[in-house]
Amino acid sequence: MASTLKGAPERVRVELGERSYDILIGLGLLARAVEFFKPLKLGNRGVIITDSTVGPLYGAALQQALRAGGIETEIVDVPAGESSKSLRQANRLLEHLPSLGLDRRSFVIALGGGVVGDLAGFIAATYLRGIAFVQVPTTLLALVDSSVGGKVGVNLPQGKNLVGSFYQPRLVLADIDALKSLPERELRAGFAEVIKTSAIRDARFFAWLEREYQRVLRREPDAVAHAVRRCCEIKANVVSKDERESGLRAILNFGHTVGHAMEALVEYEGLLHGEAISMGMCFVSKLSVKRAGLSEAESKRLCALLEASGLPAHPTEKFDMNRLLEAMRLDKKAREGKLRFVLLKRLGEAVVSDAVTDADIEGVFNVCCR
Amino acid sequence: MASTLKGAPERVRVELGERSYDILIGLGLLARAVEFFKPLKLGNRGVIITDSTVGPLYGAALQQALRAGGIETEIVDVPAGESSKSLRQANRLLEHLPSLGLDRRSFVIALGGGVVGDLAGFIAATYLRGIAFVQVPTTLLALVDSSVGGKVGVNLPQGKNLVGSFYQPRLVLADIDALKSLPERELRAGFAEVIKTSAIRDARFFAWLEREYQRVLRREPDAVAHAVRRCCEIKANVVSKDERESGLRAILNFGHTVGHAMEALVEYEGLLHGEAISMGMCFVSKLSVKRAGLSEAESKRLCALLEASGLPAHPTEKFDMNRLLEAMRLDKKAREGKLRFVLLKRLGEAVVSDAVTDADIEGVFNVCCR
Repeated sequence: MASTLKGAPERVRVELGERSYDILIGLGLLARAVEFFKPLKLGNRGVIITDSTVGPLYGAALQQALRAGGIETEIVDVPAGESSKSLRQANRLLEHLPSLGLDRRSFVIALGGGVVGDLAGFIAATYLRGIAFVQVPTTLLALVDSSVGGKVGVNLPQGKNLVGSFYQPRLVLADIDALKSLPERELRAGFAEVIKTSAIRDARFFAWLEREYQRVLRREPDAVAHAVRRCCEIKANVVSKDERESGLRAILNFGHTVGHAMEALVEYEGLLHGEAISMGMCFVSKLSVKRAGLSEAESKRLCALLEASGLPAHPTEKFDMNRLLEAMRLDKKAREGKLRFVLLKRLGEAVVSDAVTDADIEGVFNVCCR
Repeated sequence: MASTLKGAPERVRVELGERSYDILIGLGLLARAVEFFKPLKLGNRGVIITDSTVGPLYGAALQQALRAGGIETEIVDVPAGESSKSLRQANRLLEHLPSLGLDRRSFVIALGGGVVGDLAGFIAATYLRGIAFVQVPTTLLALVDSSVGGKVGVNLPQGKNLVGSFYQPRLVLADIDALKSLPERELRAGFAEVIKTSAIRDARFFAWLEREYQRVLRREPDAVAHAVRRCCEIKANVVSKDERESGLRAILNFGHTVGHAMEALVEYEGLLHGEAISMGMCFVSKLSVKRAGLSEAESKRLCALLEASGLPAHPTEKFDMNRLLEAMRLDKKAREGKLRFVLLKRLGEAVVSDAVTDADIEGVFNVCCR
């Protein structure tokens, strides 16, 4: 499998009518970027938006690979970290682009993790009312989650992703090689979304992860590629059925109502998104036992896999429950003040529920967070 | 006709598949807003975005009309004028909305002219990745142009409308009564877009305007309603054929390449959009004689109607030609440095052309602008 990865990349198609696009998964794809760009008939000028960590690692290589094919790009970077996913950075970039001579046929490449992808995608969605957008994810989180599905945007002080668009990339270049440089903690945080994806939609994949998680976390290319492909297939399937999240797509937010609130309370400092989602999933699996018929055994299997993967399953610091509830109500998934949760009926099957009460939350909170 | 206007409003349907919407044209529609909102099944909370001129005139009346139907709104205003169509104002509004308790089922009403419509539309397009949007235009320009077609956004220092989205309203409430308070100069500026709409698409309507322009400018309701309806029909037809401006829709930019450049050079001060477009149309009609076979006679009819309507047809101050060319090249309609113009083959028929040379522009400039 590792050797096939070096040939033609694996292809996952995201079917969205005229907005359909391919996710290409393989090794060494960055150096071959031109071959994948050319069929898209993008213009010959673009901007690579990246961050201060990833830019120095891969920026010049990508730029040179494109230049060899007659495509000129400028590299623009933002400071690494969630705090760059802000209106302030978005404005700075938007005000900078005209000086690069970009026009409607130009394109934006997001080279980096979820923060860069969401920020650069928002720039692509709004500059000149939308120009072409290519995702080159370099973290596991971005490979399996944020680069698929077209959600782009920035945070507000009041909460995550409160400003943004649905805007689909023209291509996702998922180069597994980019994971080599990923810090261990980031890898594990991304793995939380892999576990999430299996838990909501594919019990067989969840069982595969229970067996193979160590190989993925050791970054064995065939194991990583399998996990990435399966996550992309599942997410592509969900998104193509409900692009703008009027129904099914909401299940992708499993663990996110609690997780986002935790991130907001620590002001996005010292807690990675995947770590927050990990705690959120474990928390919600216990709500699921109470309100959606999940078995105790399956709830425990989920929390155990998270912990075995080196992820926090129980809040690592004391969150105040009232502040947590308040932050959850501010989340954009709240509907007229009512909290909505994605619950598991069983591993591999999720439902959206309005049935969770404050008392339910308090009950779980008192068990797991004190 | 004036009396029918007081009953059921006239309805122009903008056909855009699942994004289709109605433009309702009539008198006294603001006070009846609930009756038109209810069938849309919007939530019962929203924000009215307006400006410091229009807000005091119509804000409270609209708010009360909605409240009587159980719909609660807050009014937020920005300073009147083009300078509010900025990333700075957009950010201020986006950062304010969470404190109003708006969620995904909430809506944004744009109450005002083109600046408010474009700004509020951009807020609606990006807040929570897009919430429902209703246009209540209060200027002739907004009634006939900016509130139809879904182009929303803000300016950058380098040029107009460089940041934005295509985002369709759910409803346009075109209350002719709102024109009563419109300053004379604004009315004439809006009339430039009425003339534009006829010139690119409907010679009969152009001839009607030649006969009836004084009645429109005297704000006689039946004449205004006819002009508004015909403009909305024409624009709706063009937009429904090409929502995202990949082809036909570009003809709506007749006069705009030159006009936008003029506005940029005076930094949007002292020159209304419609006045700039008026000069742009007259300028381009002369390019059209040279490059698209427009007759001298029809070019003169166009410039004469603009002048008779009290609009500037020749630049009112000396623009430097090189700076004008440079500003035109920065316009987002430029394609890889090449200027594109919408030319007239004849009154009522426009074409997009790459054939105009710098020498052509200089030739016209030397005749009309020295």
